Amino acid sequence: MLIDRLIDKIKETDNPSVAGLDTCVDYLPDETREKCETLYDAAKYITDFNFALIDALKDVVPAVKVQVAYYEMYGVEGMRAFSDTLAYARQHGLFTIADVKRNDIGSTASAYSNAYLGETVLEGSAVTPFESDFITVNGYLGTDGVKPFVEDCKKNDRGIFVLVKTSNPSGGELQDRLMDNGKPLYENMAELVDGWGEALRGKYGYSSVGAVVGATHRAQAEAIRKAHPHLFFLIPGYGAQGGKADDLAVCFRDGIGGIVNSSRAILTAYRKPQYAGKAFDEAARLAAIAMREDINKCIK
Amino acid sequence: MLIDRLIDKIKETDNPSVAGLDTCVDYLPDETREKCETLYDAAKYITDFNFALIDALKDVVPAVKVQVAYYEMYGVEGMRAFSDTLAYARQHGLFTIADVKRNDIGSTASAYSNAYLGETVLEGSAVTPFESDFITVNGYLGTDGVKPFVEDCKKNDRGIFVLVKTSNPSGGELQDRLMDNGKPLYENMAELVDGWGEALRGKYGYSSVGAVVGATHRAQAEAIRKAHPHLFFLIPGYGAQGGKADDLAVCFRDGIGGIVNSSRAILTAYRKPQYAGKAFDEAARLAAIAMREDINKCIK
Repeated sequence: MLIDRLIDKIKETDNPSVAGLDTCVDYLPDETREKCETLYDAAKYITDFNFALIDALKDVVPAVKVQVAYYEMYGVEGMRAFSDTLAYARQHGLFTIADVKRNDIGSTASAYSNAYLGETVLEGSAVTPFESDFITVNGYLGTDGVKPFVEDCKKNDRGIFVLVKTSNPSGGELQDRLMDNGKPLYENMAELVDGWGEALRGKYGYSSVGAVVGATHRAQAEAIRKAHPHLFFLIPGYGAQGGKADDLAVCFRDGIGGIVNSSRAILTAYRKPQYAGKAFDEAARLAAIAMREDINKCIK
Repeated sequence: MLIDRLIDKIKETDNPSVAGLDTCVDYLPDETREKCETLYDAAKYITDFNFALIDALKDVVPAVKVQVAYYEMYGVEGMRAFSDTLAYARQHGLFTIADVKRNDIGSTASAYSNAYLGETVLEGSAVTPFESDFITVNGYLGTDGVKPFVEDCKKNDRGIFVLVKTSNPSGGELQDRLMDNGKPLYENMAELVDGWGEALRGKYGYSSVGAVVGATHRAQAEAIRKAHPHLFFLIPGYGAQGGKADDLAVCFRDGIGGIVNSSRAILTAYRKPQYAGKAFDEAARLAAIAMREDINKCIK
């Protein structure tokens, strides 16, 4: 079961964090950023940057999260960089989370799922164009919009993280509002997610169908953890968004229970005074190690 | 204002419907479908099929809706077909709705918006890789996740349709549930959407920030129309999903108020007995005309 293998890898690396490859040209070192005159250039230098980061991080982090928005903005060429980055990370033994937040009605959700978790059938063959271990999903459309992803998780040993409580400041605008059963929307969403993943629970008790729970909302994260011991969390919001290791400790029990994302702090570590003079990949590695220590001291 | 120009075009074509280009290889005629052995082949024949449909439909429908899931499933090559289809439709005077249902925290929503509505800044230039008039957006993350799209709507005269009440069978699972103010989630979402679009209302009173409201849920559509006279609707669910022209009449006043999507019934019209012997593009044209008549007789 995928979630067991991810947890085993988290234990092996002693690192419950994931490096977010939200790479845009602004994050590239001056000497390559200045060469990005076309979408093709941008995609090329972003890919090179990502490959170097994967090389530097592959024995430090168990997984990478690749945010597709930062590749879509570079068009078709950007989508090639996205695809190549996912493939390179997988080849180097990292778990991959494609952060795509896809959502639609059943038939269309099936098409999305083909792209990432299932397969696209062609004449005489079948392919998974953006093959990923996990993707993120938005559950606003309810069960029949999520089922195609869950079916592919079962068939191909994949996983999803469904948005429950997001890390952004407006995350509570709808998600924290109480519903007819006296529970907030995020809790009603968490209950659905728990049900969708029931058949995908592994040896540690966690399901390959997990939840996105932001590090920036401690009380809500604690409530979700308490009510849903089987939900494994993808935890954004640490670092640049203001979430602290101390806040997200509530997501864990005995050191497991979630994986914490950091993007900007790792990608642009080379610009920080404490890493002055280091190459971007070496700085990223040191930042990832510092993040691991910061989180581990709070969750253990 | 974009929404005014769309309404003018709806009046000019006397057609409040949009052709959904949810093209996958299964919908292609046998002679091209059988040639789709690689993603490259699939993208090529899908593009050819779409171009022929646009040629056949350009004086019948005011707009096309391109569902990105059916292009993502063909990978990078599929995204090229998506991009080329959007560009070809725009070149031929059709309004374009990229049905992408994107959603994320503010900084990431900005990256998505660059791809479709804004622009991606490069060294010495800026481009909009998947330029579209409108995109669809999922509002689960609240105001700060939608604001970057709305800002680009203001800056570049674009539009969005935010998911309010979706057409799928499970659409009500969360969306119909009552919240703390005694109103269902979809109504709370509609109120937010109405507010986001306040500064983008045009001469007909409708905003370029509209709502996705399914044709399959008549009572809810009627309630949203009554409470939100400024929301223009993108209406999926007609035809293959079971929505009838009679049901969606509640979305319109004096013949305007929304645009109704049909995908499969147009794309695969050539397989229907009544269009036997017609080429796929000619059959699609006849099906689009039949849809126009069917809807007009109910909304006028």
